[in-house]
Amino acid sequence: MRFFSDNAAPVHPRILDAIAAANGQDTAYDGDALSKRLDGRLSELFEREVRVFWVPTGTAANCLALTAMCPPHGGVVCHRDSHIQNDEGGAPEFFTHGAKLMLAEGDGAKLTPATIADTVDAIANDVHRVQPHAISITNATEYGRVYRPDEVAAIGELARARGLGLHMDGARFANAVVATGATPAELTWRAGVDALSFGFVKNGGMNAEALVFFRPELAAATPQRRKRGAMLLSKGRFLAAQILAHLEGDLWLDCARGANAGAALLAEAAAGRLVHPVEANEVFLRVAPAEAASLREQGFDFYDWGPGEARLVVSWDQGADAIRPLADAIRTL
Amino acid sequence: MRFFSDNAAPVHPRILDAIAAANGQDTAYDGDALSKRLDGRLSELFEREVRVFWVPTGTAANCLALTAMCPPHGGVVCHRDSHIQNDEGGAPEFFTHGAKLMLAEGDGAKLTPATIADTVDAIANDVHRVQPHAISITNATEYGRVYRPDEVAAIGELARARGLGLHMDGARFANAVVATGATPAELTWRAGVDALSFGFVKNGGMNAEALVFFRPELAAATPQRRKRGAMLLSKGRFLAAQILAHLEGDLWLDCARGANAGAALLAEAAAGRLVHPVEANEVFLRVAPAEAASLREQGFDFYDWGPGEARLVVSWDQGADAIRPLADAIRTL
Amino acid sequence: MRFFSDNAAPVHPRILDAIAAANGQDTAYDGDALSKRLDGRLSELFEREVRVFWVPTGTAANCLALTAMCPPHGGVVCHRDSHIQNDEGGAPEFFTHGAKLMLAEGDGAKLTPATIADTVDAIANDVHRVQPHAISITNATEYGRVYRPDEVAAIGELARARGLGLHMDGARFANAVVATGATPAELTWRAGVDALSFGFVKNGGMNAEALVFFRPELAAATPQRRKRGAMLLSKGRFLAAQILAHLEGDLWLDCARGANAGAALLAEAAAGRLVHPVEANEVFLRVAPAEAASLREQGFDFYDWGPGEARLVVSWDQGADAIRPLADAIRTL
Amino acid sequence: MRFFSDNAAPVHPRILDAIAAANGQDTAYDGDALSKRLDGRLSELFEREVRVFWVPTGTAANCLALTAMCPPHGGVVCHRDSHIQNDEGGAPEFFTHGAKLMLAEGDGAKLTPATIADTVDAIANDVHRVQPHAISITNATEYGRVYRPDEVAAIGELARARGLGLHMDGARFANAVVATGATPAELTWRAGVDALSFGFVKNGGMNAEALVFFRPELAAATPQRRKRGAMLLSKGRFLAAQILAHLEGDLWLDCARGANAGAALLAEAAAGRLVHPVEANEVFLRVAPAEAASLREQGFDFYDWGPGEARLVVSWDQGADAIRPLADAIRTL
Repeated sequence: MRFFSDNAAPVHPRILDAIAAANGQDTAYDGDALSKRLDGRLSELFEREVRVFWVPTGTAANCLALTAMCPPHGGVVCHRDSHIQNDEGGAPEFFTHGAKLMLAEGDGAKLTPATIADTVDAIANDVHRVQPHAISITNATEYGRVYRPDEVAAIGELARARGLGLHMDGARFANAVVATGATPAELTWRAGVDALSFGFVKNGGMNAEALVFFRPELAAATPQRRKRGAMLLSKGRFLAAQILAHLEGDLWLDCARGANAGAALLAEAAAGRLVHPVEANEVFLRVAPAEAASLREQGFDFYDWGPGEARLVVSWDQGADAIRPLADAIRTL
Repeated sequence: MRFFSDNAAPVHPRILDAIAAANGQDTAYDGDALSKRLDGRLSELFEREVRVFWVPTGTAANCLALTAMCPPHGGVVCHRDSHIQNDEGGAPEFFTHGAKLMLAEGDGAKLTPATIADTVDAIANDVHRVQPHAISITNATEYGRVYRPDEVAAIGELARARGLGLHMDGARFANAVVATGATPAELTWRAGVDALSFGFVKNGGMNAEALVFFRPELAAATPQRRKRGAMLLSKGRFLAAQILAHLEGDLWLDCARGANAGAALLAEAAAGRLVHPVEANEVFLRVAPAEAASLREQGFDFYDWGPGEARLVVSWDQGADAIRPLADAIRTL
Repeated sequence: MRFFSDNAAPVHPRILDAIAAANGQDTAYDGDALSKRLDGRLSELFEREVRVFWVPTGTAANCLALTAMCPPHGGVVCHRDSHIQNDEGGAPEFFTHGAKLMLAEGDGAKLTPATIADTVDAIANDVHRVQPHAISITNATEYGRVYRPDEVAAIGELARARGLGLHMDGARFANAVVATGATPAELTWRAGVDALSFGFVKNGGMNAEALVFFRPELAAATPQRRKRGAMLLSKGRFLAAQILAHLEGDLWLDCARGANAGAALLAEAAAGRLVHPVEANEVFLRVAPAEAASLREQGFDFYDWGPGEARLVVSWDQGADAIRPLADAIRTL
Repeated sequence: MRFFSDNAAPVHPRILDAIAAANGQDTAYDGDALSKRLDGRLSELFEREVRVFWVPTGTAANCLALTAMCPPHGGVVCHRDSHIQNDEGGAPEFFTHGAKLMLAEGDGAKLTPATIADTVDAIANDVHRVQPHAISITNATEYGRVYRPDEVAAIGELARARGLGLHMDGARFANAVVATGATPAELTWRAGVDALSFGFVKNGGMNAEALVFFRPELAAATPQRRKRGAMLLSKGRFLAAQILAHLEGDLWLDCARGANAGAALLAEAAAGRLVHPVEANEVFLRVAPAEAASLREQGFDFYDWGPGEARLVVSWDQGADAIRPLADAIRTL
């Protein structure tokens, strides 16, 4: 009864099957048949030509995206509670060779054109100040909130107006697609997104994420950067296989639908205790220490999120049977 | 009939089984039960306390090792034909923040104390010259040669005398262990090696390599560097599982034994054409263009290695049945 | 009638004289007689053994100090309005290879143990978060405020307790010494400071600043880093000469005394308009746009500091004769 | 009687005068009147529009040039005995964020199209190999040899054909101009050079070198990089003043002419002992240890250059009176 993290969940059996099925001989690195299918398959999904790179972590996808948009002497506007700022051990600074993360505000870890402008406008345009080159947003956010297509588009417009790149950290992109009912295209490039870190691991994958460039010219040096970042796995076909299997028959959407539904059940049970509206697969609750202890005694595992708050993350494999006991336990606190 | 690269070979079924068996819930990153077993299991194998980190590529292992030994303003002595110099897209420079690779000579891509001294002695000890901080050797080398324990020890002695760290790139460490008959301990720390990139992928693994530190203090910042390098996979248990399965019942040695034996068969067939003595699983042949074409027409795939030379790599899965046709074809050239 | 910046002021004639006097033959880089006198001369000034490096900019001094205290994967706590965060074009990130500046609050750009703790305590001690390794304070601050020895010591104590290095950006250290009446020792190492960027250029120098290490072991790799940072000037004797001349007969204190006194006169004239208490050589005023325009029409040059605010900086060469007209103009606004 | 290095020589009095004359108030950094004259003045000298940046060291000029031509994942072809490879403490790797120096051969530290091609052709064009992005040549070279315009042009043609940038390290550019009798334009952009490190310090300057871009678009991010490299001096007018004074009345050519003439006298005296033809201001001699000791006993100071070789560098201030005694001493060895 683990609600600690969607990273703790098992891998979906169809992903495992795809890995096993990929186990023949093929060219190393990304020269194999499966890796070569990625551009086409994701171009289809996104309804436009895209360039795709498998990578072993979401952090890798984020960092290769940012490096394609921001020079070492530049900056990236992001939310002060974003993953790239707080949870990647300085990887964005490492891969960009020292670009500066420029922190902006926003409810539920969501940026808005206004909060972005607040941050950017405070920066004098001279050689002494690091200048912004990109914006990075997360969908769904660290607090389980989602950007709808129009919200992304408003930021996309500001990005274009100011000559900034726009990156979306989509570690939980599937949950955002399900939550908004938007198409992948509507939620990304049609709204001005230049590159997407398309996450699969938190959604039932094993160790393959996809970095998707909607402007192919941005990807010109990404093959070199992926290699140089020690992330060009020699048997890349096993990563490509995971991504293709996840897209097959909309498995990725089914997994996210299940997780979001579970979170909705918990949200219902926790009405009145919610710190943030529940839109994806994360639930932030106000719980007294004694209440948290009681839940843990009943076998529910979760993450303390500051004093008096708990984070519950629902994974793709937790159906109603797994959720109901926790929902009941929350109701009876 | 592929002799192109051991990276093109399939994954051993026992590795796949271990991945499947690891597919339950567990703590993310390296907090899971399998990852926690690595230090102990490899300490046993190496007959001393070691610190171990799984990483998704050999390049990652090499780079994290070098970064632990060499500051940004330092240098690493390596062979001019080494993998870190020629085949990692500048990853060593990236991870070390610009340390300099100092190229040395040596037959068969093997360094010797004398060739290392030649390189190091040419460097005036002043602030204008980048100073050496480490030596990196590869066992087995890019040309399929192996260092015996006494050869490593001679380099280890020089390293200690000059205050340099000693790294071994063991992408094909298993082949070297089999070839020399040495124990893992004899071939590494007993001979002065401080850190080993212990390769599994070329030897039937999927995407897990082990970075082994024989001096635990060297590893003090490696957790941070692995994270910052975007290589702390969120479901690390699937990497740990591969390494543990590979060590189980000496599968790693069996795989390497098979590959080395295949190469020996080819070497026998190619006597008189060998560019380098065949000691591990690689065979470098002199072949005229017409001969190379003839082999390819017969369905044998391999890598051209400069004019008039070919590289044949034997993989763990290529038994006598796979090898004999090629051996015969070479004999009848 | 320029109050724009102390960087716009002329060089003190005695500094020019010292440069001319240094114009003989001597060993290049820092092997000359003058450079060799620095350690001794500043050890005397600071009443303990110190290691000193001349550098051509204050940014260089700051960055070499931070690099000595903070690894690439670490962080440096500083004020959100500090020079290293806002005015060095990302140089700290460049020299530290991507360390993160961790922004803290504080009145008048002064940190306190409490505001530092607020920032540091919010950082979970795990591998996903960049961990703080150093604190950097500026004395006098960007807003012309000074830290007294006891204030520095309180921060020094916190630094020691948490295992953090403590750097002081002393671009206007002379003004702080004059303002507090403290000795150089009291304001630095006796209060826990590990390294000081000792500024001379804003105080009548030309292009030499001193980086002073109070813990010599911190400086172990600084010669290499200065060289690698392209800052080991080949005729370093002309930098050393400036620093020595500045210290000769307390010229540095005389210059700062003059500038502080000028600022005090302006502060008196501007009572009621002051944004910050005036303690060093900077005066921040509330002025309506029309008032600012009026001052400019009268020939006074200064920097707009956000809406309705102006920054006036007094330089070493601006005696009462230069100050009084501006003081009068402010009074009659 | 110092022939150790042209860095040990005094500053020319006209440079000192220019510094003194610059000592008024002016805008900080490079906003002053003198700095603003540089582009125009050097455009005139080079007979085309150029972009110029003052920097405090030749290493800084070299590194900013290379960074403008080569991404972190790229490489720069240079001579194995070049200054950027051997004498800058890894600064090129630092400023380029880890680009690789690709070593090529050539007599007298001179590259030729053939030796460059040897190096470049050995690099397979795939993602595993660092690809060359630029060539850097030194004129005059480390061994006092010069490239004539046609020799530069041959390299420039190769650079263009292969899409590589071409940088000239002109720490002793003045000596090369004098030696070849070419115009500055003929020796640089007319021969395909994209950027020149135009040295003044070794030629009687104090601490200002000029980085000259012949393709202005290459300089787009150089202001940011200079700032970020901590090399935007706050009183830049004193650097600009030096450069302008050096160009005034061809002082730079007079200084170099004197030094070259002195070296020619020594070369005449040392005929039969010369390791390299003497073309600029450096003389490399074969001397037995006893001979070297004898010269030193007579008061001549110089640099041992490997076993049995000595390097003598003649400076701008060493006229026939200074040279003759050494010439005589060499003759009578």
